[in-house]
Amino acid sequence: MTAVPRVRMAPGDRREQLLTLGVTLLATRSLDELSIDLLAEEAGISRGLLYHYFGNKHDFHEAVMRRAADDLIAQTAPPTAGEPLERLLASVAAYVDYVEANYEGYLSLVKGAAGGNQQMRQIYDEARGALTDRVFREDAQGSVVPDTRAARLMVRAWSAMAEDLVLAWVRDPEGVTREELLAALAASLPALVEILH
Amino acid sequence: MTAVPRVRMAPGDRREQLLTLGVTLLATRSLDELSIDLLAEEAGISRGLLYHYFGNKHDFHEAVMRRAADDLIAQTAPPTAGEPLERLLASVAAYVDYVEANYEGYLSLVKGAAGGNQQMRQIYDEARGALTDRVFREDAQGSVVPDTRAARLMVRAWSAMAEDLVLAWVRDPEGVTREELLAALAASLPALVEILH
Repeated sequence: MTAVPRVRMAPGDRREQLLTLGVTLLATRSLDELSIDLLAEEAGISRGLLYHYFGNKHDFHEAVMRRAADDLIAQTAPPTAGEPLERLLASVAAYVDYVEANYEGYLSLVKGAAGGNQQMRQIYDEARGALTDRVFREDAQGSVVPDTRAARLMVRAWSAMAEDLVLAWVRDPEGVTREELLAALAASLPALVEILH
Repeated sequence: MTAVPRVRMAPGDRREQLLTLGVTLLATRSLDELSIDLLAEEAGISRGLLYHYFGNKHDFHEAVMRRAADDLIAQTAPPTAGEPLERLLASVAAYVDYVEANYEGYLSLVKGAAGGNQQMRQIYDEARGALTDRVFREDAQGSVVPDTRAARLMVRAWSAMAEDLVLAWVRDPEGVTREELLAALAASLPALVEILH
């Protein structure tokens, strides 16, 4: 882990840099393990300066997690060209990459949200809403998924399935290749929507 | 709500009766709302006697939730006769009934487990394990689901999907009839396992 260079920066830039470092640290740590002390040490700056940027540990955690969720949404954006199913496959591949690269932090978000932490719940719901809304926005002609109340329920349930499957696979991939996993994630969406739409 | 009659009972019977009352109260309340005071009032007995049976609030909550999870497993047992898919349909219908009748308490279990409460996690995992293991036990010939590592991952992911779908539907059933929901729950299991097994 390289320290943030001690150069003169605009406050906004420095905050951005600290957030990026926070997200990097979170990838392999739970949120509980991501302390102000750790970030200060890794960034080579004082705790006092961190409190200046983030107010308190709670706000710091919220800002880092929000940035991590934004990264998830950005990294899983499907390519702009291609057939709907190919684009879906690219998007789920990026999701698997993200969960693999950020397992601990992602699990903290899932746990925090489900456990009733209001901030984590909001960040998680926004991210999940963005991911599922995107299915309908990206497929405006409804060639894979018609935009009905039933299909929206099912797309959300599919994303719960995908989350469970990917987290379990990253923990223990035995018996399932990456290609099988990706194919199953992409094929299951139209299959489930065909069953309830 | 009827009070537990003040009759002389064996301690084991009285504890059973109090657990049953606790589960009834939990159906329409979160675990946080289920206090020793409330149970004492509803049961018409002293708080002191409740502490005698359950030790402390924590143990009381654990005992009630464990009983609620046992009820879920018992109530969703498929009929012993019939075609595998018919039996699966009966089991998912019972699951929907259970979630409808016990929405608040069930949500507390899901949230507590996901949020990292160790006891709730253990109870939830045991219940979910029992439900998913049953799929394989009940279908020993593998006519619906072959017993492979991939299929076990997928059955677990299906149960996450089913949980999300049923909780969302109970909150707001608009656009999806009960029959459509049940048919989708039963049809989605073999469809998903066909995709990854």
